[in-house]
Order: sequence, then structure tokens, then C-alpha cells
Amino acid sequence: MLGNTYDRQACSIARTLEVVGERWTLLILRDAVFAGLTRFSDFQRSLGIATNGLRDRLDRLVADGILRREPYSDEAAQYLPTEKGRALVPALVALTAWGDEWAAPDGAPIVYRRPGCDGVVHPELRCEHGDPVAPGDLLVDIGPGMTEQRLAEMDAIRSSRARDPRLVAPAS
Amino acid sequence: MLGNTYDRQACSIARTLEVVGERWTLLILRDAVFAGLTRFSDFQRSLGIATNGLRDRLDRLVADGILRREPYSDEAAQYLPTEKGRALVPALVALTAWGDEWAAPDGAPIVYRRPGCDGVVHPELRCEHGDPVAPGDLLVDIGPGMTEQRLAEMDAIRSSRARDPRLVAPAS
Repeated sequence: MLGNTYDRQACSIARTLEVVGERWTLLILRDAVFAGLTRFSDFQRSLGIATNGLRDRLDRLVADGILRREPYSDEAAQYLPTEKGRALVPALVALTAWGDEWAAPDGAPIVYRRPGCDGVVHPELRCEHGDPVAPGDLLVDIGPGMTEQRLAEMDAIRSSRARDPRLVAPAS
Repeated sequence: MLGNTYDRQACSIARTLEVVGERWTLLILRDAVFAGLTRFSDFQRSLGIATNGLRDRLDRLVADGILRREPYSDEAAQYLPTEKGRALVPALVALTAWGDEWAAPDGAPIVYRRPGCDGVVHPELRCEHGDPVAPGDLLVDIGPGMTEQRLAEMDAIRSSRARDPRLVAPAS
């Protein structure tokens, strides 16, 4: 298993994956958010995962503030998604959309709908002015959280590439 | 490491994670799509990952059709994202957005912009009629790819929950 060794990367994808980068973890969150499961035994039945593995992952999700643990009886607890956990819904929907398109030969197992109109919900990318952006058209810019170290590292990689005439042009 | 044991789940999130559910895998794709890295040595310098681990993951990404491998000299190859790989951009942007909000104390390291207006790009959820949906408002519906087995399994979990008056109402 990989440790949390991404900090050097100055990357929000890497930091997100430090929290939810284990596959079972995102499936636990899926069950908590979309299926409304709350109990240890619910998650275990849904996921078919070993007791220790589930315990570790639930504890980690609680420690990271993705789920909160509340007693509902003397001997048992329930796990509820927090605001921080629910904020992962757009990522879960985007992962769903990819799986529906590329790995669901029998069609989408689950469809997300908008209350009121019942319209099917899809992830989109839009700029701050509300205009849609094709995923292939994104520009990547340096933000305030980029580190000098990472910037220098990537510049070194890029300049070694620029000296190699055999390479195709980098993706836009 | 977990095997590809999710098929019972009839879930597009699980199927997506079978392909890109290892953290390094999504970071390799990030470097290929957003940083334009193409060579084995580029990925290795960017990620600081062991040779065997990187080799395994690149081979897997090629086998799954996320990257394609092309020779660029007698002894070396370059890896380029395919259409199927680029289709993961919305998921990468959604993972970035969560990390920017919840795990980037110094601000976003990377900002995605829309060509032309340079506006900052965010993931959104919209219904098929174009109306925005708050992530907490999604309805979850059964789609054509759902299996009888999984449906029965989830119904059994839900009915055991319904008999327990100590539980809070499930999340909408």
C-alpha cells in the first residue's frame, strides 16, 4: 500500500487521493451518500469486505472528517456523511459517468436525476462566466498554492523533453 | 492490493475504480493529460515512483486503453492519452476541486482556465435540460444496467434498516 507521500507534488488531485484514494473508501462513501447506508453491518453486506478492512477505512473516514460517527445504541454506531464528505459528490458523479460510458455494456446501473424535472444529471465543466468547456480544451495555469520546488522539478522535466526532437508535441 | 472484485456491485463507480482506482494511476494520467508528459523517465521524475511500479501501471493503462504506447526510438517509447483516457478529465477536475477546497491551505496549486475568456473552470452538475443541480439534491434512480442480484441485496439491507427505529432517516 502507498503511504501519504504526495505532498511534494503540490497537487490537489494527489491530496484528494490521500483521503479517498483507496477504492473501497470511495465505495463506502458512495453507499453512505447515495444509498443512505449508515451502519457497519450495512456497509459490510453491501461491499462484502472483511471486518478489519472496513473498520480501518471507516475510522480513517471519520478521522478525515468525511463521515461522522454517532452512537445509536449502547453497543453500535452509525456513520453519516459530513459536508466535507458530501462535497465529493461531483467527483463520484464524474467517476460514474466515465464508467457508464466506457465500462457498462448493459447500460448505466444507476441514473442520477434532478428533483422536479427528473432530468438525467451529468457532470459538466464550465468557466466562471457560465460557459461550457470541452474537457480537451482546458488550459492549465499555475495557482497560488504551487511550490517553487515542484515548479522547478516540472520545468526540469519539460526542458529535457524540449531537447528531444523525436517526441510528438505535448498535449494542449 | 484489492483485486477486481467489484462486478457483483453493478456500479459504474466501482468499474471506473477497477481501471483507475490506484492512486498512482490517476497521477500518471494527470501528468499525461495536463502536463503533457510522455516518456517513462518523465513520469518517473514527476512521481518519484519505483521503476517496477511505474512499469506495471503504464502497462495496465495501455492494456485498458487509457494510454497508447508508441515507439519514438529503437529503445524507448512514449505514452499518449487516448480518447478513453481524456474522458477522465471531468473526474480529474472534480477531484482537483475537492482538494482545492478541503486540502489546499495555501490555495490551489493548479488552476484550469477556459481558452478565450481565461475564466476559471469548475465542475458542475446539470440535468439534461441544462439546469444546475446542487450535489445534495440528486435523486438516485435504477438504470438499465442494474442487476436483479444487486437490487435484491440492497433491498435486503434497506429492509433490515427500516426495522431499526434507532436510525436516523437515510440521506435523500
